[in-house]
Amino acid sequence: MLVVQKFGGTSVGDLDRIQNVANRVKKSVDAGDQVVVVVSAMSGETNKLIDYAHYYSKTPSVREMDLLLSSGERVTSALLAIALQEMGIASVAMSGRQAGITTDGIHTKARIEMIDPEPILRQTRNGSVVVVAGFQGITQEGDVTTLGRGGSDLTAVAIAGAIKADLCEIFTDVDGVYTTDPRIEPLAKKLEKISYDEMLELASLGAKVLQNRSVEMAKKLNVKLVTRNSFNENEGTLIVNEEEIMEQPIVSGIALDKNQARVTLRGVTDRPGIAAEIFGALAAANINVDMIVQNVGDSGKTNLGFTVPKTELIAAQKAIEGFKKDFDSVDFDNNIAKVSIVGVGMKSHSGVAAKAFTSLSNENINILMIGTSEIKISVVVHEKYSELAVRSLHAAYELDK
Amino acid sequence: MLVVQKFGGTSVGDLDRIQNVANRVKKSVDAGDQVVVVVSAMSGETNKLIDYAHYYSKTPSVREMDLLLSSGERVTSALLAIALQEMGIASVAMSGRQAGITTDGIHTKARIEMIDPEPILRQTRNGSVVVVAGFQGITQEGDVTTLGRGGSDLTAVAIAGAIKADLCEIFTDVDGVYTTDPRIEPLAKKLEKISYDEMLELASLGAKVLQNRSVEMAKKLNVKLVTRNSFNENEGTLIVNEEEIMEQPIVSGIALDKNQARVTLRGVTDRPGIAAEIFGALAAANINVDMIVQNVGDSGKTNLGFTVPKTELIAAQKAIEGFKKDFDSVDFDNNIAKVSIVGVGMKSHSGVAAKAFTSLSNENINILMIGTSEIKISVVVHEKYSELAVRSLHAAYELDK
Repeated sequence: MLVVQKFGGTSVGDLDRIQNVANRVKKSVDAGDQVVVVVSAMSGETNKLIDYAHYYSKTPSVREMDLLLSSGERVTSALLAIALQEMGIASVAMSGRQAGITTDGIHTKARIEMIDPEPILRQTRNGSVVVVAGFQGITQEGDVTTLGRGGSDLTAVAIAGAIKADLCEIFTDVDGVYTTDPRIEPLAKKLEKISYDEMLELASLGAKVLQNRSVEMAKKLNVKLVTRNSFNENEGTLIVNEEEIMEQPIVSGIALDKNQARVTLRGVTDRPGIAAEIFGALAAANINVDMIVQNVGDSGKTNLGFTVPKTELIAAQKAIEGFKKDFDSVDFDNNIAKVSIVGVGMKSHSGVAAKAFTSLSNENINILMIGTSEIKISVVVHEKYSELAVRSLHAAYELDK
Repeated sequence: MLVVQKFGGTSVGDLDRIQNVANRVKKSVDAGDQVVVVVSAMSGETNKLIDYAHYYSKTPSVREMDLLLSSGERVTSALLAIALQEMGIASVAMSGRQAGITTDGIHTKARIEMIDPEPILRQTRNGSVVVVAGFQGITQEGDVTTLGRGGSDLTAVAIAGAIKADLCEIFTDVDGVYTTDPRIEPLAKKLEKISYDEMLELASLGAKVLQNRSVEMAKKLNVKLVTRNSFNENEGTLIVNEEEIMEQPIVSGIALDKNQARVTLRGVTDRPGIAAEIFGALAAANINVDMIVQNVGDSGKTNLGFTVPKTELIAAQKAIEGFKKDFDSVDFDNNIAKVSIVGVGMKSHSGVAAKAFTSLSNENINILMIGTSEIKISVVVHEKYSELAVRSLHAAYELDK
């Protein structure tokens, strides 16, 4: 089996842990796998380098930042290859450039444009374990770039796609994807399988196992993903195409997002284009609007509600200022949370939403907003009730079974 | 003026010192120079990375070591470029690869094969200060290589040659090249100018300002070198072609080398080829023989003396073992030192050697061996007299004047 294994910063956090990763890789090699490893910088290294740069400048040039930050992953890749060689395993360390990764020129958040599979495959065919420095590539002009937060996941998935790997294993410090955050609901269960789309919804809703961009890319390139714990031998969660999940549960998980704030405009003038103007102004101010709900209000006017990240609430207030005469009053609410029920199975099942509303009502939790997509139902509730809401929904859909 | 400035590990030892280097570069820019900077890793960084690698292996693979070690200089180059930009100076950091440096494939001690001047000149023409990560390059196949100890000096000189710089300034933590080690002779004077050949003799004799390879390359490429102190504004020492030194002093400096040991073979059979056999065996054992002196001995036999590095004395004993029946007795002496008088002027002056012997004799210092080259006279003395010998010669040639 040709497999890509990605180890994040915590998994390679010190010299002993890198040795632990080497032992782990050896097991796969001994089992007959051809292995390509993608590593992050040792945890703390990237932040140390950022601090160094900020010693000189609050806004260091992004081109130089990329040259600076790319060094962390190079160090880890060389060390891991050395550790593997010492165990008698042929191994070759590669920078992003050597691994054939070409990106666009958007420094600090470059997009992978192409991966030449040959440099890596030439080595795996020879029986060598290739250890690639994650998070980085070069432009066609030869400038060093980095891929932004979660970039090493992206490197792993993109390489897995390019070399047509059978599996891409993402090692972190948790066992996999859970039905909900186990710190909120100790009865949460690890999922054996989940679809790309569900994972996307869960990732964007705060399940921090995998970055959205990596899941999107895995879906696009049809890369079979597994997320598992580098510190134990547990099975992990497989992330695949919907079609590959035989028995699709109606609901796979409950996600909680406490980083949203709610804006409510009451008595908005009901003239064509007003919504477009307001959201255009918010977009121009780079504010990420998440849920949007519009209701009929009194006397031909409408009520318009939406959520924005808490950190962008002040900017949102400013942007809305300009529309004062288009509405009667405005409410800003910081003390809300968004609870989402995610599951591909709900497409073909009715009554999923009703069950959620009943469950919350039984706990006397007031629903402030509702939004739905094909595979997701989100409700906004008072923040203080949010954990209770998660637990009550978790039980309602029998996710602890 | 197009100038290359190289700053070593101590000069970029911490964030403040990198800022100090930026200030220094700014002065040259303000004075109208086009500047290319070559930097080493922050002091301690390279050793830290070596320690990391040795955690896994006593003999880590050289290919991976090069990828590992090259990261230190990349960090410094990015930080210095950021510091310069913050001061309003356009600046671009470059890895060895980006600076167009191609080497052979001898990892950890690669030789520069070619430097494409265009990537650097394109930036200097635009008015940017180019900050190059020293000590590194890539092979034609794209593998990262490093140039060995003193490699950043080599990078600086090679770049200066490739871009036809007017001057190559090597910044260290001493003011320049001295007539002798000031710790031995406080009256030692800094030299204003010295020829490549003299510098070569002094460097190989223990004056640690510049590595031999860099001086050789400077001579070959006719690069005008200056070595000066990064922590003050003193003038430094200019290292140029003999012809450019108007008034050549007879003697430029006195060097001391305490790392040699002496081997004396007495009563060597006087048959053709015996010397070739002995030194052939030493060469085969990778022993660096320095001075060789042969004298007529008693009854048609000869006495053969030579020096080897102290660390190689045991290996030398072993190599000589095989020739036991070709000589009467052998002496190994660890307690010697080599004192050398260096100066291009002595080519055209007689009596230089005589003055040395008189001076030593006046101090009752016994001369154990004598060796000469065109611009150097070396004497081997008992180690305990070596500092006295240096001071007495320094005075004899009036180097304190």
